[in-house]
Amino acid sequence: MENFEFFNSTRILFGRATENKIGEILKKDRIKKVVFVYGKESIKKIGLYERVVKALKDNGIEFVEHSGVKPNPVLSHTREGIEKAKAEKVDAILAVGGGSVIDEGKTIAVGAKSKKDVWRFFKRQDEIKGALPVYTILTLAATGTEMNENAVITNEETKEKLSISSRYIYPRVSILNPELTFSVSATYQAYAAVDAIAHVIEYYFSGSYCPMIQNRFIEGLIKTVMDTTESILKEPYNYNARAEFMWAATLALNGLAKLGIKGGSFPNHMIAHALGGIYDLAHGACLSIVIPAWMKWYKDKNPAQFERFAREIFNKETADEGVSELKAWFKKIGAPVSLKDAGIEESHISKIVENAYNIAEVWQMNDVYTKEVLTEIIKNANY
Amino acid sequence: MENFEFFNSTRILFGRATENKIGEILKKDRIKKVVFVYGKESIKKIGLYERVVKALKDNGIEFVEHSGVKPNPVLSHTREGIEKAKAEKVDAILAVGGGSVIDEGKTIAVGAKSKKDVWRFFKRQDEIKGALPVYTILTLAATGTEMNENAVITNEETKEKLSISSRYIYPRVSILNPELTFSVSATYQAYAAVDAIAHVIEYYFSGSYCPMIQNRFIEGLIKTVMDTTESILKEPYNYNARAEFMWAATLALNGLAKLGIKGGSFPNHMIAHALGGIYDLAHGACLSIVIPAWMKWYKDKNPAQFERFAREIFNKETADEGVSELKAWFKKIGAPVSLKDAGIEESHISKIVENAYNIAEVWQMNDVYTKEVLTEIIKNANY
Repeated sequence: MENFEFFNSTRILFGRATENKIGEILKKDRIKKVVFVYGKESIKKIGLYERVVKALKDNGIEFVEHSGVKPNPVLSHTREGIEKAKAEKVDAILAVGGGSVIDEGKTIAVGAKSKKDVWRFFKRQDEIKGALPVYTILTLAATGTEMNENAVITNEETKEKLSISSRYIYPRVSILNPELTFSVSATYQAYAAVDAIAHVIEYYFSGSYCPMIQNRFIEGLIKTVMDTTESILKEPYNYNARAEFMWAATLALNGLAKLGIKGGSFPNHMIAHALGGIYDLAHGACLSIVIPAWMKWYKDKNPAQFERFAREIFNKETADEGVSELKAWFKKIGAPVSLKDAGIEESHISKIVENAYNIAEVWQMNDVYTKEVLTEIIKNANY
Repeated sequence: MENFEFFNSTRILFGRATENKIGEILKKDRIKKVVFVYGKESIKKIGLYERVVKALKDNGIEFVEHSGVKPNPVLSHTREGIEKAKAEKVDAILAVGGGSVIDEGKTIAVGAKSKKDVWRFFKRQDEIKGALPVYTILTLAATGTEMNENAVITNEETKEKLSISSRYIYPRVSILNPELTFSVSATYQAYAAVDAIAHVIEYYFSGSYCPMIQNRFIEGLIKTVMDTTESILKEPYNYNARAEFMWAATLALNGLAKLGIKGGSFPNHMIAHALGGIYDLAHGACLSIVIPAWMKWYKDKNPAQFERFAREIFNKETADEGVSELKAWFKKIGAPVSLKDAGIEESHISKIVENAYNIAEVWQMNDVYTKEVLTEIIKNANY
């Protein structure tokens, strides 16, 4: 088992009606004014917007709205949020939405405390030295951002999709009410399931040693994600299925699942970000295209773990069966598993490779993920 | 899934040589002087005492020693520690040892910040309003206290073994180096395994609803505890086995394993504390006597979960088989499974019942755990 450090400073409030506490929580933390970040109409449709506004007003919390966050949140809109936060001298960010809204909220929190252009932190040209406190109310369980130190933003000018990671952007409090995810569509539930699975299998497969305690933890999360997704697709209002899925997605990327694993990395996310930077494709859809293609390329490099995966998750014997079962399951729940499924032409492969290589350089993974390797992997997804 | 709140403020440093960082850590946190709490000679035998002293001196941290903590830490010795902490005006507690040392350290941290007698907090006559920060270096993985908000102390005059629970006593930093547990004896490893299993099965069995995500998490921890204990008993210097056991024991009681479970309680610990308050028996030994006896009494109240346990852990079909397999495993690793094994005579049963009922009253569990019920359970352990 590798040495590790673990600290997660996010407080989770989980369950029914917890979002109504947001006003009291902010007041107790002596927050006077927030930027209220959200997407489009969905939080209004489910009545959440009104409940949040009421909770804020009842507790005397002022707020400036910053709406219109896109599914792949973009830099220009984030910069507008930073300007608002600075101009209005807010004490905190309140992000109400899915992973995109929270990631934009985290980035606004960083930008608001810095005189530097926020993109410099994504390019790793400067170190993050602070952030406003971030509070979240989650409406789409998938990315795990509600309990971690990461945020992903797309620079729409340069087509770069990059991430930041800093202890300052653990949300101070995240509110997880599974009922708020009842309205998540079947398509987005499928993408969310792919994303949660992707988060735990990256280290599980790419690490050169994975402790048994982590194998079991990760396999338990994968089984939970799969079972609950099937239940949710049949019964969207199944509270326990929504709740278990929500908590599984949080645990999948709150830092616990990678502890002690030797030498893991995030290759599937790297390539998926390259796709997401170019095409207006949901992150989960990018991942369901990339994962089977990456697995096909990687499986012989860690055969014992791929066989274990096949056995524990699908009750199959061979690595190949494990890979094809996972791909079939992605397809079954409605996620794309090829470039063709997403309407991307073969002629685009070199462009995707270029973009993926660019991220590989920033992430310092270009020693393994050369353009040749990336081409091979992305070609695996071309059918 | 039940509503829950989760927050764990302990930072974990895990791995080889991490104890050498204690001086830097304290210095960075601006700690000037600590009470250095430990047990007897064992930390000197493994050279840990010297390394800690060096790390403190190298970083200019003053310290007052408070040694001689007993395996079931007692109130009188804890009060002496509190007096030292007050007289010497320390800023923090450094506890180096197993669960007993850390629990006494946490209690000193509470007592040092209060004008009230510390036992009042255990009797739940007063609320804990603060504590000195606690830093720990763990030398026996078992109780989980290194990453939770609990402490257990025995009042040797009244024979009461009671606990406190407060957010102020999460250790600020806990250092877990599995190598420091190489010298843990086979007997204590067995007790530690029983304790870690006990922590996760209390809610798993006694809750009226256990989410699948928790079933899988808990079963993964139990399997890890069992597999690694068997490896450790054969090869005490197996680093990965010690490491996985250590992390499993921490996860077993850091708050995660109970989230979302409906209506669980800690009956086995309640009765084990009654035994531990009267007899000089290790906590794990008390638990290995109590658990099979409690299971025998309880299994028909939650048959599906007991059948699941038998199937998932032992690949058996019936609840009875699960119970007897667990008992056989406790026996196999060298833990006592009856009052007779511990040399306790049948005539003592009523005394144990009285003591257990006393705790049941403090824990407000005496509605279910009447003297009749406690007698039935403890009689199950009498053979």
